[in-house]
Amino acid sequence: MWGAIRELKIRGAPALGIAAAFGTYLGIKNSPAKTFAEFKQDLDQAIKYLGGSRPTAYNLFWAMERIKGKAEELKSQAVEKIKEALLEEAINIQEEDERLCESIGEKGAEIIQEGNTILTHCNAGGLATSGYGTALAVIFKAKEAGKKIKVYADETRPLLQGARLTAWELQQEGIEVILICDNMAGEVMREGKIDQVIVGADRIAMNGDTANKIGTYSLAVLAKHHQIPFYIAAPSSTFDPNIEDGHAIPIEERAPQEITCWGGRTIAPKKIKVYNPAFDVTPHDLITGIITEVDIIYPPFQKSIHQVIDR
Amino acid sequence: MWGAIRELKIRGAPALGIAAAFGTYLGIKNSPAKTFAEFKQDLDQAIKYLGGSRPTAYNLFWAMERIKGKAEELKSQAVEKIKEALLEEAINIQEEDERLCESIGEKGAEIIQEGNTILTHCNAGGLATSGYGTALAVIFKAKEAGKKIKVYADETRPLLQGARLTAWELQQEGIEVILICDNMAGEVMREGKIDQVIVGADRIAMNGDTANKIGTYSLAVLAKHHQIPFYIAAPSSTFDPNIEDGHAIPIEERAPQEITCWGGRTIAPKKIKVYNPAFDVTPHDLITGIITEVDIIYPPFQKSIHQVIDR
Repeated sequence: MWGAIRELKIRGAPALGIAAAFGTYLGIKNSPAKTFAEFKQDLDQAIKYLGGSRPTAYNLFWAMERIKGKAEELKSQAVEKIKEALLEEAINIQEEDERLCESIGEKGAEIIQEGNTILTHCNAGGLATSGYGTALAVIFKAKEAGKKIKVYADETRPLLQGARLTAWELQQEGIEVILICDNMAGEVMREGKIDQVIVGADRIAMNGDTANKIGTYSLAVLAKHHQIPFYIAAPSSTFDPNIEDGHAIPIEERAPQEITCWGGRTIAPKKIKVYNPAFDVTPHDLITGIITEVDIIYPPFQKSIHQVIDR
Repeated sequence: MWGAIRELKIRGAPALGIAAAFGTYLGIKNSPAKTFAEFKQDLDQAIKYLGGSRPTAYNLFWAMERIKGKAEELKSQAVEKIKEALLEEAINIQEEDERLCESIGEKGAEIIQEGNTILTHCNAGGLATSGYGTALAVIFKAKEAGKKIKVYADETRPLLQGARLTAWELQQEGIEVILICDNMAGEVMREGKIDQVIVGADRIAMNGDTANKIGTYSLAVLAKHHQIPFYIAAPSSTFDPNIEDGHAIPIEERAPQEITCWGGRTIAPKKIKVYNPAFDVTPHDLITGIITEVDIIYPPFQKSIHQVIDR
């Protein structure tokens, strides 16, 4: 599971949460521990190990904390009972995510009007979650409601999640989708083609600053320049109560080969230096609203985020 | 020559001008015309044909107009004499470009201070001209003047001129260069790493609106948001006296396969729609200055451009 997460065989913040929950269970499934203290050691080790796979997505840590909390709750029970309960909790997380995605889609669909064109970045669809997705759930639900809509999908370099995943998901659902390179988003906005930008999130600080796939921040600046609403769609498990603002969100830097190689071929000079941050942080003042399973929340986020997580 | 230009074997606005001049000569070299009237027909046909290769770069049309002007000037002479003179004129255009690039570099180098970091997009270097380049000439000259500088190069999707050409040219000159994906430019600016953006141009309208490689407009918006100076570097032959503002600049749309295929492999779903504009237009109010061979000119461009082209 560590490898699958590290190498992006599983990616997308909600899917990472689910994978981390099951991964934690796999980590302790064969634990020979007899006492809770021994079991707890193995559990902590599994969590620490899995947490090293990818640092930015908060859902990953959120899910493992929840598994850990469940174990603590059952500490007086037999270790085998606890193991069973942790598997059940992982399944709960997955099933909840399916319902969450559907709720995010339903809440968010109201921002989309008949005939609207939406721009999205990376993949926040079914392939990033257990079900509908987050940003794409909003689009799917708008379509289900009978609205005729169109989507521009950024290809999303370096790993092309937009071209490979988002374009495919939208095509499968019969939604008109137009693929562009990331550097064309500004031009498409200038041409007046975009009504909303909707993207997912990997971690949201308590002031609304949002970490998401690299390029999201540029889109938010471009959207502001063109006075286009910019929405984040994410389950409430994406809010990190320990992080006040975006500066404290750890940003993963990935291997240079993601940029310099393509299908085994090298496309840049040998020994070239590369900067490859996997995420960026969009400051809250560039965000129009955050679509959660509870409601769409608006600034001031410092207040409205609490209305969602303190329920 | 038409094929070489169309398929980007020759690219970069100044290099296209040179290629068009030689291409025009090749087009009439074997003309059997005996009279100037007959010769003029062949010349016009060659120019019309070559002009269909790529619509956006003004230097292409500028160079062919100059060749045509030379022919008109010598209309009373024998056709074979005119042919010789047109070859000479093409060589002149090439040699002038070498001097122009050097002048652009010298004029522009003053905007770069010791320790500065420059962001550039696409390739406006020696591989886009006959000599030093335009935007890269400025960087090369700053380095020759002993300034320690650093460059971030956008890879420039879809055709990766930044990764393949700019990164290589800078590396060859011993200049520290860091390759990024286009969607990372905003993050790099936010991190405070960029002192100036310098890019080339394919056509500049009389109010300063500038057509350049797709993605340039997004960079200009991002630079404005981060209060980073944004410069165009281009020879005066890039100004199009027939075009008042950017709306009238024709923008070439290229084949979807440039985005959906890579080294023979398909990277997007079959039958996906694609939007692939090769250029965008950066409005003059996002441009700090235009570095020409005559001088760096500043707003109001409607006035300052005339100081360059009316010399």
